Amino acid sequence: MSVFPTLAILGVGLIGSSIARAAREAGAVDRVTLYDPNPDVRARARALGLGDVADTAADAVRDADCVILAMPVGAMGAAAQEIAPHLKPGAILSDVGSVKRAVADAVSPHVPAGVHFIPAHPIAGTEQSGPDAGFSSLFRNRWMLITPLGPATPAQSALADFWTKLGALVDVMDIDRHDLVLAITSHVPHLIAFNIVATAEDLEAVTESEVVKYSAGGFRDFTRLAASDPIMWRDVFLANRDAVLEILGRFTEDLAALQRAIRWGDGEALHAIFTRARRVRREVIEAGQDIAAPNFGRNAGAE
Amino acid sequence: MSVFPTLAILGVGLIGSSIARAAREAGAVDRVTLYDPNPDVRARARALGLGDVADTAADAVRDADCVILAMPVGAMGAAAQEIAPHLKPGAILSDVGSVKRAVADAVSPHVPAGVHFIPAHPIAGTEQSGPDAGFSSLFRNRWMLITPLGPATPAQSALADFWTKLGALVDVMDIDRHDLVLAITSHVPHLIAFNIVATAEDLEAVTESEVVKYSAGGFRDFTRLAASDPIMWRDVFLANRDAVLEILGRFTEDLAALQRAIRWGDGEALHAIFTRARRVRREVIEAGQDIAAPNFGRNAGAE
Repeated sequence: MSVFPTLAILGVGLIGSSIARAAREAGAVDRVTLYDPNPDVRARARALGLGDVADTAADAVRDADCVILAMPVGAMGAAAQEIAPHLKPGAILSDVGSVKRAVADAVSPHVPAGVHFIPAHPIAGTEQSGPDAGFSSLFRNRWMLITPLGPATPAQSALADFWTKLGALVDVMDIDRHDLVLAITSHVPHLIAFNIVATAEDLEAVTESEVVKYSAGGFRDFTRLAASDPIMWRDVFLANRDAVLEILGRFTEDLAALQRAIRWGDGEALHAIFTRARRVRREVIEAGQDIAAPNFGRNAGAE
Repeated sequence: MSVFPTLAILGVGLIGSSIARAAREAGAVDRVTLYDPNPDVRARARALGLGDVADTAADAVRDADCVILAMPVGAMGAAAQEIAPHLKPGAILSDVGSVKRAVADAVSPHVPAGVHFIPAHPIAGTEQSGPDAGFSSLFRNRWMLITPLGPATPAQSALADFWTKLGALVDVMDIDRHDLVLAITSHVPHLIAFNIVATAEDLEAVTESEVVKYSAGGFRDFTRLAASDPIMWRDVFLANRDAVLEILGRFTEDLAALQRAIRWGDGEALHAIFTRARRVRREVIEAGQDIAAPNFGRNAGAE
């Protein structure tokens, strides 16, 4: 039985198109409506048969029992304002943004009485973007963090049911804690990946082709993260500024200590830090989070 | 036909054991002798049937036409000194260290007249270590950089033939350039991965289990690099100090600029940097270097 007779998805990128595919495949909805401000993306969504593609956001949400905002987080406030007058009483309004406090602050003022706004964030993705990049198994065995703004409600249970049907592992988390945890597990790692790739590109002493040619030694792993959507990530860093700067400050201090150990030949200090880092990896494997991003398999060669 | 009737491998870890497996499978040698200073590793090498395991380095190299040093780079000078009196005239002495200048400086003084010392570095590996972690396809389609200390010789051609038989793509590179290129493509990426994992572990505000649990958002990719052998990497950073500090200095400057852009809400600067980084990724894919490390496939779940 479907959780939501009609689901509306605003923003048809990697995540939005994956929700459309997964929701229908899982029978979690009867009907999916979609809207994207980019007419080319709408045309592509139609060609892919992702659902009923509307030409305005208002048309997409009018009959929806649940509306999911799946655009870059910086655009969510304006989107909420635009659709607010057209939301069905009793509807759920949710999102998939990687930052939750800024989204909650931007969206909340526009939420009409009788509409249930529940911020949420599925920890899933690949470095690909656009409606062609989505696939229905994207959320399978991935965490879905719901960061409610008040006590649990039947609407929240329905949203959790929906994501569970899509294969996700649903957790509830304090909204500010979410932003700090994600700063360390996702935002700062991406920032560092973007940064090292840009540093490499700037190096005049090492031609770019050499960096690319010999990238298998570790650099390649960073380029994957750094291939993620630039607009999405710009918005994430602007929206989660305080937590990102806090973690970045600690990272920079720690890096300065490593740099000093290298300069002064302090092998013991290096070895101690490297040994601790290795232990964390073991925990990641034990926690079952060491699964390659699905696209690794797709892009892979003969190996 | 074999390239070397007898090949000696000193140091039976991931790389050494992979060479033993690959060389015999490819028919590049008739016989492999091995030595490791750790008696447990020698016992394991015997149990795995990797070749003729000797109880001293001298015994392992005595009849060898080619000797490959496959221990951490900091131990190579002493190993060369130990085996020097026992090397066969005309033999090739090579290595697989990730740093080349420091190895060349440490090994060269011990090389007897009539022995051909040719430093080399296969850009291949996984985050696993030890003799059980090796596998024969590790070098297939990976770059093998030979960094000779003089003009090309027949001995160098033979070494290139050997690695080609193992499936590697052989290139010749200036020895100092190697150390700079590898600093950016491998050494600094690993250092940063070790560092961010250590930073995460130190964070009292975010319990370690949360970092591990939600690691799929990007952090996981860093833990893989940070799981690499601590002793091997300690030696790499001590041995390639100047190039690593040079690249690290640039990385830190660039990161400070990103940090400033976040603090002041400069979305345009962020977007410009992220867009450039994405382009480099495309080049990595086009160069065919976007192949997952083999262990990704092995550890992967159902995806």
